[in-house]
Amino acid sequence: MGEAPKPAAVPPGLEADAGVTIHAIAAEIFPLCRSITGDGVRETLRRLGLHIPLDVVEVESGSPACDWTVPDEWTIRAAYIENAAGERIVDFRANPLHVMSYSVAVDEVMPLDALKRHVFTLPEQPDLIPYRTSYYAPCWGFCMAHRQLEALPDGPYRAVIDADLTPGRLTYGECYLPGDTPEEVLLSAHICHPGMANDNCSGLALLTYLAKQLTGEKKRYSYRFLFAPGTIGALTWLARNEEAVSRIRHGLVLSCVGDGGGPYYKRSRRGNAPIDHAMDHVLRLNSGAPEIVDFVPYGYDERQFCSPGFNLPVGLFQRSRYASFPEYHTSADTMDFITPEHLAESHALVREALFVIENDRLYRNLFPKGEPQLGRRGLYDALGGDPKAAEKNLAMLWVLNLSDGAHSLLDIAERAKMPFATILATARLLERHKLIAPVLA
Amino acid sequence: MGEAPKPAAVPPGLEADAGVTIHAIAAEIFPLCRSITGDGVRETLRRLGLHIPLDVVEVESGSPACDWTVPDEWTIRAAYIENAAGERIVDFRANPLHVMSYSVAVDEVMPLDALKRHVFTLPEQPDLIPYRTSYYAPCWGFCMAHRQLEALPDGPYRAVIDADLTPGRLTYGECYLPGDTPEEVLLSAHICHPGMANDNCSGLALLTYLAKQLTGEKKRYSYRFLFAPGTIGALTWLARNEEAVSRIRHGLVLSCVGDGGGPYYKRSRRGNAPIDHAMDHVLRLNSGAPEIVDFVPYGYDERQFCSPGFNLPVGLFQRSRYASFPEYHTSADTMDFITPEHLAESHALVREALFVIENDRLYRNLFPKGEPQLGRRGLYDALGGDPKAAEKNLAMLWVLNLSDGAHSLLDIAERAKMPFATILATARLLERHKLIAPVLA
Amino acid sequence: MGEAPKPAAVPPGLEADAGVTIHAIAAEIFPLCRSITGDGVRETLRRLGLHIPLDVVEVESGSPACDWTVPDEWTIRAAYIENAAGERIVDFRANPLHVMSYSVAVDEVMPLDALKRHVFTLPEQPDLIPYRTSYYAPCWGFCMAHRQLEALPDGPYRAVIDADLTPGRLTYGECYLPGDTPEEVLLSAHICHPGMANDNCSGLALLTYLAKQLTGEKKRYSYRFLFAPGTIGALTWLARNEEAVSRIRHGLVLSCVGDGGGPYYKRSRRGNAPIDHAMDHVLRLNSGAPEIVDFVPYGYDERQFCSPGFNLPVGLFQRSRYASFPEYHTSADTMDFITPEHLAESHALVREALFVIENDRLYRNLFPKGEPQLGRRGLYDALGGDPKAAEKNLAMLWVLNLSDGAHSLLDIAERAKMPFATILATARLLERHKLIAPVLA
Repeated sequence: MGEAPKPAAVPPGLEADAGVTIHAIAAEIFPLCRSITGDGVRETLRRLGLHIPLDVVEVESGSPACDWTVPDEWTIRAAYIENAAGERIVDFRANPLHVMSYSVAVDEVMPLDALKRHVFTLPEQPDLIPYRTSYYAPCWGFCMAHRQLEALPDGPYRAVIDADLTPGRLTYGECYLPGDTPEEVLLSAHICHPGMANDNCSGLALLTYLAKQLTGEKKRYSYRFLFAPGTIGALTWLARNEEAVSRIRHGLVLSCVGDGGGPYYKRSRRGNAPIDHAMDHVLRLNSGAPEIVDFVPYGYDERQFCSPGFNLPVGLFQRSRYASFPEYHTSADTMDFITPEHLAESHALVREALFVIENDRLYRNLFPKGEPQLGRRGLYDALGGDPKAAEKNLAMLWVLNLSDGAHSLLDIAERAKMPFATILATARLLERHKLIAPVLA
Repeated sequence: MGEAPKPAAVPPGLEADAGVTIHAIAAEIFPLCRSITGDGVRETLRRLGLHIPLDVVEVESGSPACDWTVPDEWTIRAAYIENAAGERIVDFRANPLHVMSYSVAVDEVMPLDALKRHVFTLPEQPDLIPYRTSYYAPCWGFCMAHRQLEALPDGPYRAVIDADLTPGRLTYGECYLPGDTPEEVLLSAHICHPGMANDNCSGLALLTYLAKQLTGEKKRYSYRFLFAPGTIGALTWLARNEEAVSRIRHGLVLSCVGDGGGPYYKRSRRGNAPIDHAMDHVLRLNSGAPEIVDFVPYGYDERQFCSPGFNLPVGLFQRSRYASFPEYHTSADTMDFITPEHLAESHALVREALFVIENDRLYRNLFPKGEPQLGRRGLYDALGGDPKAAEKNLAMLWVLNLSDGAHSLLDIAERAKMPFATILATARLLERHKLIAPVLA
Repeated sequence: MGEAPKPAAVPPGLEADAGVTIHAIAAEIFPLCRSITGDGVRETLRRLGLHIPLDVVEVESGSPACDWTVPDEWTIRAAYIENAAGERIVDFRANPLHVMSYSVAVDEVMPLDALKRHVFTLPEQPDLIPYRTSYYAPCWGFCMAHRQLEALPDGPYRAVIDADLTPGRLTYGECYLPGDTPEEVLLSAHICHPGMANDNCSGLALLTYLAKQLTGEKKRYSYRFLFAPGTIGALTWLARNEEAVSRIRHGLVLSCVGDGGGPYYKRSRRGNAPIDHAMDHVLRLNSGAPEIVDFVPYGYDERQFCSPGFNLPVGLFQRSRYASFPEYHTSADTMDFITPEHLAESHALVREALFVIENDRLYRNLFPKGEPQLGRRGLYDALGGDPKAAEKNLAMLWVLNLSDGAHSLLDIAERAKMPFATILATARLLERHKLIAPVLA
């Protein structure tokens, strides 16, 4: 059913290569010491920018960001603990989780007891390093495995953090891909978590891959990919882009898309936005028991996009839900925890939802009085011998019956309990035969 | 509660005689070789017309019918296969299913192999003759039992079909019964299936019996009974009767109403038309587990009545759903497959739904502030000693409480979880005591 | 979170003392021979009036009451049956249930057979005295235990009822407590049942206690407590108070609130009035499986308040539903059948529902674009170390997200699946920090 100048009539389905490439992009940025500001973010954006055209935006400390203010920039050069023998027992170069994000500078020798007041561990997961931040309260800290801490002799220890917290800039990246209309689809992943693969390299890598793919494709909507630090980055972008915000018609926040859980979708605050219906349709079609929940005001940057003053049609897509898996926010969230297979699956689900959004529209039956005679137009013949003929005939009857200017193709697919792609292919066929025509917006 | 000049306050319930008579009418028309045009339809209408006043309409081939055109008329005089000994191994006079409907003429001698290309059987139901048509592709064919075909020696065989397919007329019948208002109830059954009892003699016979009954009764609505060939007949009628169409307030398509399955009701495309509520109420009241489903654009002529340009409030009533029983569209759909008992049940269900439609209306409580004093008016006494007094009192309270001009009697029955007839009798009683009054439309 | 000039931010919860006091008030009025008119009602109101300021209203016989008329007043001075030996075998001074309410005077000697035509018993509960009335048909009768009746010798017996049924007055009591606004909450219990504890002393006593409590409290709404005879009392009040009726925003009818069943709530006719949501929220929060049902036009005076001409937002609260427990309308409905514990529970549930009604309102987020920075305002610190910090944070996010002028605090509580009190406390905290502001009505 290939109609050359039009976009594909069927969603691309699983692309095994996609999983491998997304995994490789994630691996590239995995070890970097990202935070809400600083060179870790800049280096991450530089590497993503090798794949896609990326506008890197720098916003000065002190700039307003809705009710917030862009904080000072954190520069981290070194962070380690030395024992009496001068051996570094932890070093942030080995794992960026070892230093609490936004730690202030320190260089002090102290006994174990004093050191412990600055060390965070997970007693119930004694081999894992936790992830800790202190963005808005100036202090310093280290994170390490509880078992390692327990085994430490009394000391003394030298704690060194060579860091600045001074006026600088917050950095985020945007990739804008123009489509046929200025109406936008927003796709967003946070870029502030250091050294964790599922949360958040997986989302950054998947969106980077997707942006590259979409660059070469004809698109109805314009697409904006946003890679910004969680909360403060989204707020900064929202505050500076009210006009772009007004053009957003659909959106997704992505995080933790590489593990074997889920899929999970949290609806937008509106609850019945087209993206909510599209994700619902695609997830139910492709997986046995997706978890699909109403909006709750906790999670990722959908919190900001769905605040009442914006109330954007933006949902959250994940595999395992945040805070629901043991590797979450620990050093166990490694590149081994995410797999090319699951990344490919996640990619295919998002891609298919976007396919629905791109292709959903209203049609009007041009012969609404009775059924038009399909046989005369070869529309039964066209399908003859096809083992799926009955389903295709039924799809034609559904599209003809509900193309009344009030039911979109997705509405029809849901009502007919058929895949959107089947309904779309049917609508294209009927349109070609001048039986239905799109309703102009 | 007999109020002479008014129609009955209770639905008639099961009428055993009805089943016997309907069965007899069906038996009379069963053997005829109906198709979408031709003398089989004319003879069927002639016989039905012995029971009721029937307008027989003839529409010329080539006439427009919505997007369709009235086809040439098919005249079948003979159809048989002879073996080498001159014995007729199948003959359409024995069973009209033996000839594929709309077969073109043939008189050829051929070996078994060549014959087989024109013979349809049901390998999985080897003793049954299938039902086949080819209305719009000129060809010829025979239908027979698979077991018979398998047993045939090599031949040669002479295939004879003496038929014309030439400009003529499409024939349908209408019985219009005027009521108090010009607003119409449409009751329709297709008249194009040869030699099958459940599909479609049962529906034709039930509607004929019902039309005869209604002729002698006072009616709020005018009734139109339509006996037309499937699809093309309905389209022809719709195209020629736009004004009558605009007066249709309720409607039912009937088919397969004589077997022991179901009952089954498919809602109109609107989904919440009064006929949908009435059928739902009546079916739930009278049978344990009716199957009631939303509209799907596949089935009988509700497909045409519920096309988006008409969108009429017409549902489909059946016992076993089409294509769901093994006898469907085979020679096993005989007069033995339908019984007077099931026909009487189907008749009673349809009759009760029409009773609801006829009697449903809005009332207004004339003493809406507080409950009116029923005892003073003898309305408690009136019911004294009655073992159903508590239910009758409760019915009065429901009617009084919900007669606010917004809830119809059927709404009240549904809300009170009481039979419509109870609520109607209660409303009549309260109206007689000037406690409620009908809201004028 | 004590803010002196404001009403409490948390509902009072279970008050054990309340149960004891309510039980004592009920005990005081239990033995009186109430009916729809007469000195039994007056004496009941006198005793309730010792606890609260009560307006006692007397309405003359013959006065209109919606569709009804205030009946003659019934004065009962004596009612007994004497045997041949002059022994009183039943005497209404021992139990007011012995005399059928509204019995006319009699003083006759008769054999047992004749007496029996005037004696009501419960053959299936042979030790209990039934409760019988004959308000609108002049006759006389006695009620006694079936076992006692069965054991009686042949007689003769003297039946004496010294009673008048003459023009007089119907009596009801009102306690009006003004609040900040003239909008009213109506709380009502019937006052016409003699010698039964659950139905109806429990409701009268609970409302009396509650009225006393509310007298000393700051209230947003004005409260009207109504103690009126069932049906005719409510109708009389409604007919004479159309202006007060127009100010009713919420209401509850109470009855049978002292036994161990339920809780049970019957929604107002509107079905989604704020009181319906509040009772639903409170009952689900506090008890495992409350029975919450849609309005039916049978029960207590909600029948009148919810008649279509008034359609007030008034529900019915009970423990065991009327007519559902064996003690109902018998001499087994004693003071032992109701307990301080269950009365305290019922009181707490009603009080908490009123707490919701009093405190529910709309707020508007003053920083609706993105989340406001809570940390900067000490709102995270304020909760530090609190084991419920996560829930409190989430409550803040819910209130901020849904304070859009369209969701009330109760809506937010229901959406967040959190107790109303948590959401209210959160809203107060956020209001104090000028993050949200009440929407003026």
